[in-house]
Amino acid sequence: MKQAIYRTHGSPADVIELTEEPSEDLQPGHTRVKILRSPINPSDVAQIEGVYGLQPPLPAPAGMEGIGEVVEVNGEGHALGTLVLLTDPPGAWSTERVFPSETLVAVPHADVDQLSMLTVNPATAYLLLTQYVDLKEGDWLIQSAANSAVGRYVTQLAKSRGIRVASVVRRESALADVKKAGCDAAFVDGPDLAEQVAAQLDQEPVLALDAVAGEAFGRLASTLRPGGTVVSYGGMSYQPVVVPDNLLIFKNITMRGFWLVNWLMSAAREEQQRVYQELTGLILSGALHAPIDRVFPLEGVNEALVHTLKGSRSGKVLLAPNGV
Amino acid sequence: MKQAIYRTHGSPADVIELTEEPSEDLQPGHTRVKILRSPINPSDVAQIEGVYGLQPPLPAPAGMEGIGEVVEVNGEGHALGTLVLLTDPPGAWSTERVFPSETLVAVPHADVDQLSMLTVNPATAYLLLTQYVDLKEGDWLIQSAANSAVGRYVTQLAKSRGIRVASVVRRESALADVKKAGCDAAFVDGPDLAEQVAAQLDQEPVLALDAVAGEAFGRLASTLRPGGTVVSYGGMSYQPVVVPDNLLIFKNITMRGFWLVNWLMSAAREEQQRVYQELTGLILSGALHAPIDRVFPLEGVNEALVHTLKGSRSGKVLLAPNGV
Repeated sequence: MKQAIYRTHGSPADVIELTEEPSEDLQPGHTRVKILRSPINPSDVAQIEGVYGLQPPLPAPAGMEGIGEVVEVNGEGHALGTLVLLTDPPGAWSTERVFPSETLVAVPHADVDQLSMLTVNPATAYLLLTQYVDLKEGDWLIQSAANSAVGRYVTQLAKSRGIRVASVVRRESALADVKKAGCDAAFVDGPDLAEQVAAQLDQEPVLALDAVAGEAFGRLASTLRPGGTVVSYGGMSYQPVVVPDNLLIFKNITMRGFWLVNWLMSAAREEQQRVYQELTGLILSGALHAPIDRVFPLEGVNEALVHTLKGSRSGKVLLAPNGV
Repeated sequence: MKQAIYRTHGSPADVIELTEEPSEDLQPGHTRVKILRSPINPSDVAQIEGVYGLQPPLPAPAGMEGIGEVVEVNGEGHALGTLVLLTDPPGAWSTERVFPSETLVAVPHADVDQLSMLTVNPATAYLLLTQYVDLKEGDWLIQSAANSAVGRYVTQLAKSRGIRVASVVRRESALADVKKAGCDAAFVDGPDLAEQVAAQLDQEPVLALDAVAGEAFGRLASTLRPGGTVVSYGGMSYQPVVVPDNLLIFKNITMRGFWLVNWLMSAAREEQQRVYQELTGLILSGALHAPIDRVFPLEGVNEALVHTLKGSRSGKVLLAPNGV
């Protein structure tokens, strides 16, 4: 088997290396999966850089999400050939891997590319929309990083519920993309963001979703109605959150954070299954969809990381450990 | 009557001036109060500076809290000579003032200095302790600005409920004062605050109360247990709140703000009366007490403001509009 590992934290394209070793023995209760697709997510990058909330001991296998085919089972498990989501990362950037059988979630044989991205970003978008504010039809939410995968899923899920979406991007050139993705209003971030939003929307947003941090977090928070909530789920600027204390004190804004791992560790298993089933249905129907920029073979993982981090992609970068 | 007013926003000692004018007519349903004591609070300073959440039209009378004696009533109201708290500011920095009779809260003839400070800081401390986290006996809370009036009231109220208090101050010289005030642990703020707190307390705090903002807010938040809450009620550093996004995302810290005006405008009148009655009892019993640094006559209001803002006081500064 081949797998991508890192022996030290650092810039992903520099520290990731491909190793080859014998296949692992298959213990009872375990399943061997031939991995078909695995996305490169911001959380993978953060973990390799050493700035993520979970840090496995080094050297560590990379890749926290993926989809594959059951090729060998010891004991009870899914039938050979079943398409399964991997929910017990890391190690998804490998040609094959052994998992406890009960952690694998069967999905229909359908769009393998789209399904390979199901467990992290669509779930994040779903929980950001449902866990913090009881959004009513017609309410506005505002989000930064609107052209990211999560941003697009948020837009798609919000629209299906009648929630209106104001999208904020960092570059003028991204405006067309987020408008095409279905948002109701789009803005380029800047010092006058609150004035722009107030001038264009008929109501102040009640919820802000931020993946940028830094002063952009404060600017996003300043667009909210009194009593609104801003939820941080990423720190793409690598800066601390900066926000005028007036927004907390006088405007009664609440600031929260979201991390999928906290939900995976605390939510009931039935609730998790319910969410993933609903999301599977939405992906299979095409209601949830993220554009894919490129698919790389596992041998091209370092090139794929360079490509992922250069910043002007048209969508997600996937690895195809057993061939594109 | 004499009153302290400001015609422009700016440094309080520079822009406050004393004016003299005829007494106001007393309309039906109104009461004239001879004002005995009024504290100089950080919120008064912020309002005169123009950085407060409410900005009355200029020129404006100053002083948002005080106590006085009923000297004239038109219609129903308290008996002449009744000691009353002013709850319809501003204008407390005056020798006399007319208020709607129903806004005046009668209190026993007792410690006028301590009672004059009841409506703002003890209520703030009480609500900070009770509105955000369901604190259990033995829990730790941590607070910045621990030697402020609110900080001392928080310590006194927390101790009476079996909550343990970790106090953070900005200067080594303030440590003795906050220890004497009754906290269970005391720290000087610095880059290693979280390590200091972790080394000295047997449990991580569940609630942080901050009146400093800036990076001090983030340092205070970093001492909390996962899922903890930090509440901002002041911005003494005049800096925006700065906090690592990791605390929001991975540690699931919630950030809130408190402003007494929001409570006064939203809480039921009975609830407000219940809180103020409880606090009056605690002040009269001596359980709640704030040290007083100096009492100035109204003619010395500018000197009093200079003294208030120089930063090394031993307690509150009060004005005595009708003589010390």
